[in-house]
Amino acid sequence: MKSNMAGEELMNKIVSLCKRRGFVYQNSEIYGGMANTWDYGPMGVELKMNIKNAWWKDFVRERENVVGLDSAIIMHPDIWKASGHLDSFNDALIDCKSCKSRFRADHIIEDAIGMDVEGKTAAEMTEIIHNEEIKCPVCGSKDWTDARLFNLMFKTFQGVVEDSSSVVYLRPETAQGIFVNFKNVVDTMRVSLPFGIGQIGKAFRNEITPGNFIFRTREFEQMELQFFVKPGEDDEWFAYWKKYAMDWLTGLGISAENLDYHDHSPEKLAHYSKATTDIIYKFPFGWEELWGIANRTNFDLSTHMEHSGKKMTYFDNESGEHIVPYVIEPSVGVDRLLLAFIVEAYTEDEVDGSTRVYLNLHPALAPVKAAVFPLSKKEPLVNMAREIYDKLKKVFNVEYDESGSIGRRYRRQDEIGTPYCITVDFDSIEDKKVTIRERNTLKQDRVEIDRVLDYLLERI
Amino acid sequence: MKSNMAGEELMNKIVSLCKRRGFVYQNSEIYGGMANTWDYGPMGVELKMNIKNAWWKDFVRERENVVGLDSAIIMHPDIWKASGHLDSFNDALIDCKSCKSRFRADHIIEDAIGMDVEGKTAAEMTEIIHNEEIKCPVCGSKDWTDARLFNLMFKTFQGVVEDSSSVVYLRPETAQGIFVNFKNVVDTMRVSLPFGIGQIGKAFRNEITPGNFIFRTREFEQMELQFFVKPGEDDEWFAYWKKYAMDWLTGLGISAENLDYHDHSPEKLAHYSKATTDIIYKFPFGWEELWGIANRTNFDLSTHMEHSGKKMTYFDNESGEHIVPYVIEPSVGVDRLLLAFIVEAYTEDEVDGSTRVYLNLHPALAPVKAAVFPLSKKEPLVNMAREIYDKLKKVFNVEYDESGSIGRRYRRQDEIGTPYCITVDFDSIEDKKVTIRERNTLKQDRVEIDRVLDYLLERI
Repeated sequence: MKSNMAGEELMNKIVSLCKRRGFVYQNSEIYGGMANTWDYGPMGVELKMNIKNAWWKDFVRERENVVGLDSAIIMHPDIWKASGHLDSFNDALIDCKSCKSRFRADHIIEDAIGMDVEGKTAAEMTEIIHNEEIKCPVCGSKDWTDARLFNLMFKTFQGVVEDSSSVVYLRPETAQGIFVNFKNVVDTMRVSLPFGIGQIGKAFRNEITPGNFIFRTREFEQMELQFFVKPGEDDEWFAYWKKYAMDWLTGLGISAENLDYHDHSPEKLAHYSKATTDIIYKFPFGWEELWGIANRTNFDLSTHMEHSGKKMTYFDNESGEHIVPYVIEPSVGVDRLLLAFIVEAYTEDEVDGSTRVYLNLHPALAPVKAAVFPLSKKEPLVNMAREIYDKLKKVFNVEYDESGSIGRRYRRQDEIGTPYCITVDFDSIEDKKVTIRERNTLKQDRVEIDRVLDYLLERI
Repeated sequence: MKSNMAGEELMNKIVSLCKRRGFVYQNSEIYGGMANTWDYGPMGVELKMNIKNAWWKDFVRERENVVGLDSAIIMHPDIWKASGHLDSFNDALIDCKSCKSRFRADHIIEDAIGMDVEGKTAAEMTEIIHNEEIKCPVCGSKDWTDARLFNLMFKTFQGVVEDSSSVVYLRPETAQGIFVNFKNVVDTMRVSLPFGIGQIGKAFRNEITPGNFIFRTREFEQMELQFFVKPGEDDEWFAYWKKYAMDWLTGLGISAENLDYHDHSPEKLAHYSKATTDIIYKFPFGWEELWGIANRTNFDLSTHMEHSGKKMTYFDNESGEHIVPYVIEPSVGVDRLLLAFIVEAYTEDEVDGSTRVYLNLHPALAPVKAAVFPLSKKEPLVNMAREIYDKLKKVFNVEYDESGSIGRRYRRQDEIGTPYCITVDFDSIEDKKVTIRERNTLKQDRVEIDRVLDYLLERI
């Protein structure tokens, strides 16, 4: 039924479900809301943790040649000088002199005449806006300032004196924390090429146009792997991680038809990149970047070597040479990945003549693995249900619910994507069995109480 | 042996081990280091995750009456007005006019004359420094400015215009993200009093004197539970969480003799608190706060109700009344907790006439649960060891190591706190058994290869 729905209608339904079921709340809502800022509620935080744990397991912990890292958000400002972020991490913004609105120059051009201006300078964009007589989308005026560059890093002051010597930045990517620790890891962890360093953490970008719910926010969380390889083996590993990331997504339930690769053309590549491919996902608001896989070459290690004066090399036993490894970087945003999983999982079907909504989440991602319901609040049903709940909660995140009609309880679990609901009814007293209902198929199995844990373990 | 060691010597050994074994690196080290900022290396990130997972399990997930939350770091600035942080979250700083050094006024007084001035105003502290003729610890001058208040929140600008309307703050505590979502949780999660909302996340305080390794840093991570109760039941729940937190610490291996309660005297209580008790730990640099348990009364919900104009009440079915719940808050910093676990675990003993260092970490916290060594790099030992490793890694974080002498491999695992080392030797070819060595006792068991997983599962 989803395929027939307009994108906007679907997004509205998803945002509403996210609020209603405790996945995502608007941040600072009681104060009128903080624009484009969101908080994860009780179900959202579990879903997010499950996504992060799945990534950590498959990209870091279970891989013999990948180790983890957790570096600080606020680092030495010289890092951003070396990485190029201080000089080049900018958006060109332009102001309407008439109504004082401020816009991204590239968006103004793209929306007005459909021209893609990625790679153009601020001066070139100013000229295009002038020549094409593009109007202000707010007031219709053509009286523009020149486009100027604004850095996207959040700036703050460390220490108690607000002067230039105390300026620090909130990291705009977690990757640099990995590069500056490259030698620490090589010196202390017995790693040998090829090897990776993975990290999960917050990053901040002062975007002028965030939006689409949690898709693009100023504060967001990244899962980044920097995979270091010998120069010459980089193309092969680039292909490897493109495929690995794609397989990981489909393995967790995203259908292949909603995913695609998008190669960046040479003129669109970031300054550090030899090749970049995005895995794009068919969001309700269009195909958008989900996961970037970049061949960053040896740009970052080289630039830090140059700026810090410290050796960022790796001694290759085979060749007897000191080399600066190349880096393949699969980098994904947790928030937009979470949105993709919810979009993909959102399903409506018809049950007994009325519409049912459920999240078809992979069991590994579902916030709650099973819910236990006594059919009535009477003894001994409640006691029996609690006993099952107490046993299961040692193994999974499970819920116990005795309030309201069974139908209402099912509806709630369907909407949060709980794969199995376990009902203790009056027959359970005699036959020591319970009914286990599967979320998608609604198929019901009668299972002995002693076998419930095994039943779930076999399926989750 | 630890008990005989001077505090400073022990700290030096711990900092050195943390660097050497990939627990904690200095942040931005290649750029000369960022003062009082640290990165978690491959072992540190696993230990930190294990601590967070243990807390989440015991304080949130397995408790029927506690739900989780993950709110944004940058929230609406009105929140900090309402919470009192904008007006009262200050340190009084004083400058030496002669050498231009800046100090915390309370520290200057405490260090010079041993007077505890908590609760005193900046003017009162200025007077004390003047009357007592306290000298500048750097240059010896007595020529002081007046003490002035500096807010401890990091300030930044959201959007592209740096004016007062765009000023936002990095949260100095995660707690406020919970309070402003109180109604969202009540409205969407079927909770009833008493219930809790737990959160793990970064917080930032622009401390003038951070220090003691990762004990006090400007950027740090908190694990906070806000437990909402009916007024009148707050004292009882305050006592409950004090005991629960203490039991949790001892349950994870911290000995009771290194822990104590420290009650805040009435004049030292924060503006929102009716009672606060710290669980203090005997760090090598002295007894210091590890975990704060506070009775925050209904201060936060009331002040947000007043400032936002939104109802922050809970409807109590029993009494038929709308009430503003009281809050008990157990709040612990992840970084200092991690340090406490390492300090507690650090052990030296004598083995074969030389000193051995090991971390006596609880198996649930140990970054690596088991390591698998083939005695030689020859077949079939390597193959057999890899088979065991591949089987175990699906269940635990395990390491495989074939390089260097067995003694060196043991030493490394001891220092990262790995509870079990599994060696495949030449006898293993015939008897299909391996030797499993326990970290603390050095006791060795000969175990059938097929039983290794069960052997570990029974013990971890």
